[in-house]
Amino acid sequence: MAIVGEKGLITADRAEAFRKIVGDMHILMDEETLRHYGHDETEHLCYLPEIVLKPRTAEEISAIMRICNQYRIPVTPRGAGTGLSGGALPQLGGVLISTERMSSILEIDERNGQVTTEPGVITEVLQDAVKERGLFYPPDPSSRGSCFIGGNIAENSGGPKAVKYGVVKDYVLNLQVVLPTGEIIWTGANVLKNSTGYNLTQLVVGSEGTLGIVTKIVLKLLPLPKYDLLMLVPFRSLERAGEAVSAIFRAGFMPSALELVEIDALRIASRHVDSVLPIHDGIEAHLIIEVDGNHPESLQGEMEAIAGLLEEYGAGEDILFADDAVQKAELWKVRRRVAEAVKIDGYTIEEDTVVPRAALPALIRGVKELGRSYGFHAVCYGHAGDGNLHIRIKKEGSANSQDDPAMVESLRALFVLVKELGGTISGEHGIGLVQKGYMDIMFGEVHLELMRRIKRVFDPNNILNAGKIFDQK
Amino acid sequence: MAIVGEKGLITADRAEAFRKIVGDMHILMDEETLRHYGHDETEHLCYLPEIVLKPRTAEEISAIMRICNQYRIPVTPRGAGTGLSGGALPQLGGVLISTERMSSILEIDERNGQVTTEPGVITEVLQDAVKERGLFYPPDPSSRGSCFIGGNIAENSGGPKAVKYGVVKDYVLNLQVVLPTGEIIWTGANVLKNSTGYNLTQLVVGSEGTLGIVTKIVLKLLPLPKYDLLMLVPFRSLERAGEAVSAIFRAGFMPSALELVEIDALRIASRHVDSVLPIHDGIEAHLIIEVDGNHPESLQGEMEAIAGLLEEYGAGEDILFADDAVQKAELWKVRRRVAEAVKIDGYTIEEDTVVPRAALPALIRGVKELGRSYGFHAVCYGHAGDGNLHIRIKKEGSANSQDDPAMVESLRALFVLVKELGGTISGEHGIGLVQKGYMDIMFGEVHLELMRRIKRVFDPNNILNAGKIFDQK
Repeated sequence: MAIVGEKGLITADRAEAFRKIVGDMHILMDEETLRHYGHDETEHLCYLPEIVLKPRTAEEISAIMRICNQYRIPVTPRGAGTGLSGGALPQLGGVLISTERMSSILEIDERNGQVTTEPGVITEVLQDAVKERGLFYPPDPSSRGSCFIGGNIAENSGGPKAVKYGVVKDYVLNLQVVLPTGEIIWTGANVLKNSTGYNLTQLVVGSEGTLGIVTKIVLKLLPLPKYDLLMLVPFRSLERAGEAVSAIFRAGFMPSALELVEIDALRIASRHVDSVLPIHDGIEAHLIIEVDGNHPESLQGEMEAIAGLLEEYGAGEDILFADDAVQKAELWKVRRRVAEAVKIDGYTIEEDTVVPRAALPALIRGVKELGRSYGFHAVCYGHAGDGNLHIRIKKEGSANSQDDPAMVESLRALFVLVKELGGTISGEHGIGLVQKGYMDIMFGEVHLELMRRIKRVFDPNNILNAGKIFDQK
Repeated sequence: MAIVGEKGLITADRAEAFRKIVGDMHILMDEETLRHYGHDETEHLCYLPEIVLKPRTAEEISAIMRICNQYRIPVTPRGAGTGLSGGALPQLGGVLISTERMSSILEIDERNGQVTTEPGVITEVLQDAVKERGLFYPPDPSSRGSCFIGGNIAENSGGPKAVKYGVVKDYVLNLQVVLPTGEIIWTGANVLKNSTGYNLTQLVVGSEGTLGIVTKIVLKLLPLPKYDLLMLVPFRSLERAGEAVSAIFRAGFMPSALELVEIDALRIASRHVDSVLPIHDGIEAHLIIEVDGNHPESLQGEMEAIAGLLEEYGAGEDILFADDAVQKAELWKVRRRVAEAVKIDGYTIEEDTVVPRAALPALIRGVKELGRSYGFHAVCYGHAGDGNLHIRIKKEGSANSQDDPAMVESLRALFVLVKELGGTISGEHGIGLVQKGYMDIMFGEVHLELMRRIKRVFDPNNILNAGKIFDQK
């Protein structure tokens, strides 16, 4: 059921003003459109905006923001709507700004290894465009085939390659941002090193669209590695698989991906995409391990050495070396579709925990114990090399995390455990709407008040994506 | 000549309160001490504090800050005093807090590849300690043998390896910070990925001690690469050397260091350290190029391929391959001592410009032209792979950059050029005291006002390192 925010803020005059800014074709108020833009991929939540605007330029967004700031109209910025924490949900109604028409890659600068892009470009489209020039943009969320680069900036997304190459924040050099009050600034410069004043670039990355709307993005690119190898390693024990993760780094290896997928999640995803991946009996989890570089013979040696090491951690014999392109694509397809598949299978509630990687076995054990105590079923998968474990929860009658007090209690217990293990409650999906009730576990009042006051510096009237991450007091 | 700030803020009562906090041994007011702590490595500037305090713990700093905040006493935090932008200069007098007694490495966590340290640890000591465990902390400012890791955090330092491995900000996971109002917070968590609220960690890194005093630091570590190769490549043309830099990356190479040193700088530094490095006639500049990795045969191939490529850019024949440990150490020693050597030689004014790397030749050409117009002599060197060019200026009668209006005018012209080339005025040394007059070149008033207001969020009474980066209005 869709929830409707405060109505009546979009008077006929104001709608007319918006129409003049974006044009007839790009202002929408019909029920079907509002419903479409009322949800993202977070649980089964839906909140209707009053109006949807699809501007083309920073200047149009600036004009919209000036009106909204003047009349205190809530504004929710939205990319592709693939978010998992509710960051793009317009729970206060008001104006929804979609960046979908801002979809041009503006310049691929081969001489400096940089790309300048608008926010509404699909991440994979951007990756493919730079790849054609021999360049590499590593951050690759599972949703890269549909998510927008602007949304990735908002959430500080990661993906499988983060373990070697880092997350979005490590690639953002400079951002053009429309402030909630309508001014347009560039946060930095198009350079690899910058110690010139406060790092507003890094403050905006991961701020979930609460400090400004990103309208142009300058990203650092790397030379494209020429080769990669991939293997799927079965483990009889989920916990031992978790232990193996830390051992790989201690032995001096730096894989370009190190993913863990619990057997239930892999089976569900395999079915979902009609995969022919062999899955053997008696296995609790798999590690997916990739190495990349420019020297194939070195990679082969590394892969074999890692496989040898994993035997000590109870890896099964049936390691699948996916060394042709078709098999690699098949394996990555299964991995990338896990979240979608298990959601359809009823695992609608997703948590994005992250701990120091050596604490993974303790986290996995804890999740299972909490499931037994609180009567839910959970599957674990994710970017184990980073200690970033996605936990998908299925519980009869709890499609959303906030409807059921017992579910809220169990999530609180989970996040307290995560904190005790030295971790935090979101590694790459953000806090958005559904995690904000747990921020007090991570942060004291002094810290939260710093965040609230930074928000006020940028957004004195609290109109831009208000009520995400935290509530103003 | 030393300049004395406002006097009389440290009354007998207040001095007594400080004495109770830090103990008799660690409160100093004698002329010699004040003079020592009145300068850093910036030009020939000296400003005397009223009192020097050497606390041992975050709690002691917190108690000091509460008093200073109550009585509006200026506080300047200081690491090893190796800064080049005047960030540690107590130009307002008041209290100087030295972190020199906070010099313990608290934990090297091999299982998670992390180190927790106090701020007063010398960077090289930290690097050596983790190296013994097979771990690698890459950021290595030239002053690493004397600078503190806390100062590196404050300035977001870089160094030669930044080109492949990134700068300090890319390694900081979590910071314990004493706020100007005395509260103690941790900015993040000890995890590799974090999308949990605003990134206060990244806001504090590079904020030059204006937002808080860092008292504990958690850094990410990498597996230590097993091998490296190093070469010194002479060029007959400085500009062609600059062009070669961009070509190396376009060809798909990722060196672990790519330094440029103009011939005058290299000669001065060689003399300064009594080096036996061969320096040939007719050469304008050298590139110092390092590659690293775990497979020596691949590295050898890479080095030869790079050398081959450089021939097309007019590299001289006398390439020095420094492939034994003694020669490598010799070459790095010369490179690391350049700044110190040219300063002693009269090049007292230093700028830390950074541009997109393909713009290096234009920047070098521009510097030379400005020198001719304004009557100064400049030598260029620095981290060319990052586009980060240090420019050292010698001008008769101008030991400091701010005493001579013609020098101020010429620096303004330099920074306008840097901005036009897509760059910024500090890559790794910070703005501090001596660059703040040029911030308007980089940032409009809206942007500067965001920074000022962020400062007020953390430091409502503007007591902590006030007047650095910008002035409050």
